[in-house]
Amino acid sequence: MQAALPDQIRLAPWARTLRPSTIHRMLAITARPGLTSFALGLPAPELFPAEAYARAAARVLATDPAALQYGPSFRPLKEIIAALMARRGVRCRPEQVVLTSGAHQGLSVLARILLEEGGEVMTERVTYTGFLQVIEPFRPRILSVPTSSTTGIDVDAVERALAGGASPAFLYVVTDGHNPLGVSLSVESRERLVELARRYRVPIVEDDAYGPLRYGDSSVPPLRALDDRWVLYVGSFSKILAPSCRVGWVIAPEELVPALVGAKDACDLDMNTFSQRVVAAFVADGHMEGHLRSLREEYAVRRDLMVEGVRAHFPVGTRCVVPSHGTLLWAELPREVDCERLLPVAVETERVAFVPGAAFTADDSSYASNCMRLNFSYPGREEIVRGMEALGRAVRTAAA
Amino acid sequence: MQAALPDQIRLAPWARTLRPSTIHRMLAITARPGLTSFALGLPAPELFPAEAYARAAARVLATDPAALQYGPSFRPLKEIIAALMARRGVRCRPEQVVLTSGAHQGLSVLARILLEEGGEVMTERVTYTGFLQVIEPFRPRILSVPTSSTTGIDVDAVERALAGGASPAFLYVVTDGHNPLGVSLSVESRERLVELARRYRVPIVEDDAYGPLRYGDSSVPPLRALDDRWVLYVGSFSKILAPSCRVGWVIAPEELVPALVGAKDACDLDMNTFSQRVVAAFVADGHMEGHLRSLREEYAVRRDLMVEGVRAHFPVGTRCVVPSHGTLLWAELPREVDCERLLPVAVETERVAFVPGAAFTADDSSYASNCMRLNFSYPGREEIVRGMEALGRAVRTAAA
Repeated sequence: MQAALPDQIRLAPWARTLRPSTIHRMLAITARPGLTSFALGLPAPELFPAEAYARAAARVLATDPAALQYGPSFRPLKEIIAALMARRGVRCRPEQVVLTSGAHQGLSVLARILLEEGGEVMTERVTYTGFLQVIEPFRPRILSVPTSSTTGIDVDAVERALAGGASPAFLYVVTDGHNPLGVSLSVESRERLVELARRYRVPIVEDDAYGPLRYGDSSVPPLRALDDRWVLYVGSFSKILAPSCRVGWVIAPEELVPALVGAKDACDLDMNTFSQRVVAAFVADGHMEGHLRSLREEYAVRRDLMVEGVRAHFPVGTRCVVPSHGTLLWAELPREVDCERLLPVAVETERVAFVPGAAFTADDSSYASNCMRLNFSYPGREEIVRGMEALGRAVRTAAA
Repeated sequence: MQAALPDQIRLAPWARTLRPSTIHRMLAITARPGLTSFALGLPAPELFPAEAYARAAARVLATDPAALQYGPSFRPLKEIIAALMARRGVRCRPEQVVLTSGAHQGLSVLARILLEEGGEVMTERVTYTGFLQVIEPFRPRILSVPTSSTTGIDVDAVERALAGGASPAFLYVVTDGHNPLGVSLSVESRERLVELARRYRVPIVEDDAYGPLRYGDSSVPPLRALDDRWVLYVGSFSKILAPSCRVGWVIAPEELVPALVGAKDACDLDMNTFSQRVVAAFVADGHMEGHLRSLREEYAVRRDLMVEGVRAHFPVGTRCVVPSHGTLLWAELPREVDCERLLPVAVETERVAFVPGAAFTADDSSYASNCMRLNFSYPGREEIVRGMEALGRAVRTAAA
């Protein structure tokens, strides 16, 4: 009998087959000194409002004894978020806001309340790897639909699948500044998606981490502006203030809030009282608008430099669409270029990194093997100019 | 066909039956002005090292550009934790430390990697409600074993269950300053538990959030000091520094670390870079030892005042054991007192709150209906003296 016992701790099935995450792999690669990284979607560190954030933190610690204690979610921050959402064209009440530890935890608690072990999730064939990490412990069946870097999710395919009887726990979409495709959905696609959600009673989890980073003068409101019942919205201060404040939010119908709070409690309790107060103080001090404006101005310049770099240095036949939101550019290289193979070469010979498109495929398709995701928010202007030239050399060699 | 579709978003089964958590219920009750709360296990707010923490935060923000960025777990903090653990008699390497968002998330990621949906968990019949919240989404079968406020978990019962073929995913225990019982395990119980874990290949999840708060001169090392393979240790800065820093840790065999990191990533990514640096700076500045000493001194005084209060004001037949660790006192009242019914009366008539023992039962047993958990770290000395007198009146009325 003793012999039948395991020699070491037995893991849950999903954890036995776990592979290292793309994000951690990229953090390790890009930690090398002297490397130009277009790989991760990091904000520009030199634009962090560190002084204003430090002043807000100091004031909170000096004046609010509850800032270090356990406590309920900070209601004033929920009101601030409702006001920020109004500027995105979304009407919501503070009672519909659940504070989370970044958008990532927003996705995680939504998956927890919607998804059963082995349940079905609908997403694009090319999708955010962090979302795949979130659902991995549920060992879900993934129903992937085609998508494109020019128009985004194929709404006809969504409709065909739902009309054909598919009944996923939810549909995951990034409406603006798609990660990794950079694309933003048209008004027509938004309206049709919401209409399908209503007709087939399939909730949409809308990831809007990049929406506030828009580079045109006008912006189309997110899906949540069109429907307050079937759209579950996820937002975050990570890209527009600082990732390390770990403050994101979910907007959901009020009747779902207790379940979301329960899911959050199951993860880590809802006790990020200090950060929540610092973020609220930062916004209340009036810093958000100006900071967002500087981010938009600078990121737009960097985006344009990167697009010019693709046009000037990448081989003929390369396609890329100029993103109207976010921090990511998707480049489709000639079919023969294998970007997984290109990465180590580019890192070794040209000291420049990106994420191969295959990292974002929700199925086993080779659809994206000739694609790469490039980030333009983290590297400075000079670095983008030089780095794109260097990356262009590596790409041309691979395509030759 | 349309008629068969649900009218609103369908939740995963566990979320459909979710009840409001005891912690949130208590936060709501104790938020009333003028109430003396012995209910939640909150640290004393007036003892928070707010100034030293603020200085550490200011320095981190002024000097470390990575503090606001995404980034890997802060390695120097893992080294600091390894050094703190050494003082508890535990030898571990920084590579075995996984940083989490409080001990609560430590429990959550351990449950994620060990527990399948519907899997079995062994725990005491009276156990930490936060732990029950953590495992609730897995809809586990709970194998509860007897426990006592004088000797803690019934090790004979654990042995009988395992010898009889039980094979839980893990056994959950609080070794020192048990929540809610206040009890700390004897050396013999510790040795036997570890021996059983090894013999039956059942991992022990050891929750040591309260261990560093010891009131005697000497302390027995935690289970992890006896075994580095079957004991998975959970620690936290919440009780010894500040809950809102959201820094806890798991110590696990190195081969489990990738799965734990994957589980953490699935929850919220591992990006609490600011807090991790502030806590490290606070400890590196040499503040930890002195702060821990003041906590121990003051909490010991408060504990003694509370125990005196029970002896002076509670009815004959009340039993309580003086805890050697932690912040919690468990009082067993005469059998006829129903503490669930007593709570609203005590709040209304005497303006004093506690947590009824029934909130901590892992099964449907009425074992703890005449028990209450009292916290002595949050209320000040005067408040304890007056509050225990008031609570004694309410209890005597209920017992009469």
